[in-house]
Amino acid sequence: MQPTMMRYELTLTSLFRRAGELYAGTEIVSRNPDKSIDRKTYADFDRRARQLASALRRAGMNKGDRVATLCWNHHAHLEAYFGIPIAAGVLHTLNLRLHPDEIAFIATHARDRFIIVDSVLWPLFEKVRAKAHFEKVIVVRSADQPLPGGAVDYEAFIATGDPGDPLPALSEDDALGVCYTSGTTGKPKGVCYSHRAIALHSLAAGLADTLGVSRRDTVLPVVPMFHANAWGLPFACVMVGAKIVLPGPHLGAADLLDLFERERVTMAAGVPTIWLGILQALDAEPARYALTREMRMVVGGAAAPESMIRGFDKHGLRVVHAWGMTETAPLGTVSNLGPDADAWSDDERYAQRAKQGIASPFIELRAMSDRGPVPRDGTTPGELEVRGAWVAASYVEPCDEGADKWTDDGWFRTGDVVTLDASGCVKITDRTKDLIKSGGEWISSVDVENLIIGHPAVKEAAVIAVPHPKWDERPLAAVVVKEGATVTAEALRAFVAAKLAKYQVPDAFVFIDAIPKTSTGKFQKSELRERFKNHVW
Amino acid sequence: MQPTMMRYELTLTSLFRRAGELYAGTEIVSRNPDKSIDRKTYADFDRRARQLASALRRAGMNKGDRVATLCWNHHAHLEAYFGIPIAAGVLHTLNLRLHPDEIAFIATHARDRFIIVDSVLWPLFEKVRAKAHFEKVIVVRSADQPLPGGAVDYEAFIATGDPGDPLPALSEDDALGVCYTSGTTGKPKGVCYSHRAIALHSLAAGLADTLGVSRRDTVLPVVPMFHANAWGLPFACVMVGAKIVLPGPHLGAADLLDLFERERVTMAAGVPTIWLGILQALDAEPARYALTREMRMVVGGAAAPESMIRGFDKHGLRVVHAWGMTETAPLGTVSNLGPDADAWSDDERYAQRAKQGIASPFIELRAMSDRGPVPRDGTTPGELEVRGAWVAASYVEPCDEGADKWTDDGWFRTGDVVTLDASGCVKITDRTKDLIKSGGEWISSVDVENLIIGHPAVKEAAVIAVPHPKWDERPLAAVVVKEGATVTAEALRAFVAAKLAKYQVPDAFVFIDAIPKTSTGKFQKSELRERFKNHVW
Repeated sequence: MQPTMMRYELTLTSLFRRAGELYAGTEIVSRNPDKSIDRKTYADFDRRARQLASALRRAGMNKGDRVATLCWNHHAHLEAYFGIPIAAGVLHTLNLRLHPDEIAFIATHARDRFIIVDSVLWPLFEKVRAKAHFEKVIVVRSADQPLPGGAVDYEAFIATGDPGDPLPALSEDDALGVCYTSGTTGKPKGVCYSHRAIALHSLAAGLADTLGVSRRDTVLPVVPMFHANAWGLPFACVMVGAKIVLPGPHLGAADLLDLFERERVTMAAGVPTIWLGILQALDAEPARYALTREMRMVVGGAAAPESMIRGFDKHGLRVVHAWGMTETAPLGTVSNLGPDADAWSDDERYAQRAKQGIASPFIELRAMSDRGPVPRDGTTPGELEVRGAWVAASYVEPCDEGADKWTDDGWFRTGDVVTLDASGCVKITDRTKDLIKSGGEWISSVDVENLIIGHPAVKEAAVIAVPHPKWDERPLAAVVVKEGATVTAEALRAFVAAKLAKYQVPDAFVFIDAIPKTSTGKFQKSELRERFKNHVW
Repeated sequence: MQPTMMRYELTLTSLFRRAGELYAGTEIVSRNPDKSIDRKTYADFDRRARQLASALRRAGMNKGDRVATLCWNHHAHLEAYFGIPIAAGVLHTLNLRLHPDEIAFIATHARDRFIIVDSVLWPLFEKVRAKAHFEKVIVVRSADQPLPGGAVDYEAFIATGDPGDPLPALSEDDALGVCYTSGTTGKPKGVCYSHRAIALHSLAAGLADTLGVSRRDTVLPVVPMFHANAWGLPFACVMVGAKIVLPGPHLGAADLLDLFERERVTMAAGVPTIWLGILQALDAEPARYALTREMRMVVGGAAAPESMIRGFDKHGLRVVHAWGMTETAPLGTVSNLGPDADAWSDDERYAQRAKQGIASPFIELRAMSDRGPVPRDGTTPGELEVRGAWVAASYVEPCDEGADKWTDDGWFRTGDVVTLDASGCVKITDRTKDLIKSGGEWISSVDVENLIIGHPAVKEAAVIAVPHPKWDERPLAAVVVKEGATVTAEALRAFVAAKLAKYQVPDAFVFIDAIPKTSTGKFQKSELRERFKNHVW
């Protein structure tokens, strides 16, 4: 017996059309570079994305052609997120935090034909442009900025498009977009998402048990739209008709808190460093902002310290821990408490929420040691491997490296060291390259960091391996102290020694001004390792 | 540029494996025929469904072979829901409310090889068996019942299977199950679901904005597992790890309310006639049952009267209106209030909740009149047409009729007459065959029925078209009065006349003992039309 079901393509076009029909009045709010607020609706978005789609095709964009963006989070970037793929183009979000040479390398590797760039990023773009080739440069202008030479104004460009042009029929296996990973080693590597992968990812993000994105939500992605599709939130939000608030270039704690309050944000998403700044601002002035109660703050990109989760709870804000990578589109796991947790102690609940959660449906996980899959005991570490319906099987060609990222049986090696507990919950303990190998024992740098960050005087801390004549490697803690606070190395040592095995306690605590960070806001430990490689114990 | 994503099949096997890993301790509770309670866990379910899968393959079931069930809602039926498809078989749920000849026709048409049947349904099965051919009959025995001759005991059967047997690799386009529609005219017609359709349907049912099925839920499907896959809830519940409560053959209001209370049910699902009985029981003894606050009661299969929605709100229970058909797997629309509704009056909110809601992602709707798509004005009726990722494109062959159910451009004609409002919300006003054509005007039988049912003395009401010498057709209302209540035709006429145009008021109100119903609990208006076809006006 053969199934009698319709062949229906899982495309972004289907989600886009539906949103235009059902959510016409819902708002899309952007903060402009001059800090003024732009208000549009889904009806505007529907018309403008169609205009962009039409204009791109009229300008000669063919199916599969790459159109780059070099933009902050704002309505025009959202229009590009949809207007490019529904016109059969491939959205390529360039990471403006990379070095111009690296951006040029990526744009050239992807063979981007057109680019949409913010006028406030023009100085950066000029450095990129010198080393890459774009046929057409479309500029999203701030109110007060002139049109640079050789560029087309975004508004003038979309005005050449007709929103009534029919949208091309697409297959779910057509390319939708491409993102390059910003690894700290090697050349950037591209992941190309299909319409199907993004459609399924959007469904997964709307599940009540994952992020639960809903039409009743007002969602503010702090995570940039040039990082792993802003975790897929632009797609998921449009699928469900959520109100969307986009912060533009203004990612400071005060600016974000102001938007949270004014727009009654119910869900925001970003990396831990963003949230630490916001938590400090809230702690400093607890009564200043009237935020939505039980607002969800999705944390990913790096592990959220338990102290941060506890800290936000005091303000009635709920941290939701998630894990993913560019190679997983990125939603892999989300940490929500199950019904069992009702009977747990507060400490048990916080310990669970500090884990990264369980796999989404249609995502499979395993943690591998040299001896095969590790037991689900919550203590044995292994490298997290993943496969699933929105996981990369390879990188965009040509690619010299990367093949070793997939196992012979087709799983993606994440490079994350994790434990799995009996309930299947993942806890990231480290990156494989950041683990500290001390006298035959492995020490999780992340565990030690999260303890140190719990000290009231500490703003940030990174623990790295430093070569050691006797133990191979020993941990060194690089600590940033909060403004106005003081603490000694001895005090920090005593603080962590109470909760660690003796061999896990860093041999040195050194105080620095700031932890170096990657373009995605993660700690750049390679730089710290270089700096302290000749440390004298 | 080609997508670099993994090819990952959307199969029930993926959901099943994940549930066994993540939700081992979650309960599956069944009411036995003798009213005792059976308690199992997902770990039991995982083992037993694997045993069933293994046993079926060892017994000679090949890929694509149909295995029928003739069962109430209980754990063994759930095991069959998964054990058959993960073994590459096709689950065929037979509707025990049909005439034995019809069941035999359906089983023969589907060429069912094996059947799993409840011992309490053996008397029915014996009548079916005489006219159909099953190679193997597996009986789920109640505690006190002997094994019928020529049958295998279910427990003994699954004991022949090894839960460690590897599960076959499946394609998402493989057949998972088949359901036959119980139309009131013509031969039953089969719809065969693919693994992909059910996987996507499960994701859709887990969205926060549709049914929002969650691991924190305890779900009781009153809707039988032999009706449109119990609306897909068994699949969706296992996907998210919800606690499942199955009522067995005991569908009376007192039995259900007892289960709701004892098992702390958070979500139940069934047709309006079930809920009307439960509402009457709650109204009679409002303090008797301590139910979960904000328990959701999903209503589908027929339109829920607004008075019912209001009635349940008084008890703190929330009716969620949904629409679907066997041909749509069945989830098509769900009615949840959007954020706009916060500013509405109570009456406006109830009016909206009495509609069937908006289309799920990847489901498209349109309402067609003779002159093309009707405007979204909330008043112009048209026939609802649908297409999407879990919608049938045809019926199982051989099928003499049914081709006219699909339009030339590939949409399924539902036979439901609806209006669409500006927000895209569907309101079912009638079945095309139940519309009353009076002097060039169309009268919605459902609208008039829902008004009549709002009268405190009325238990049930069906409005039908009766031939009329002057007006072609005129409405006649067949009314069932509540036990102990009395009302006159004149009083009912006055009651509805206040809210209807004059031509919409039924010309006759006749009192009957009960509305005849189909096997799925819907009003069988064809029988009423036959009964009153010679009515003298």
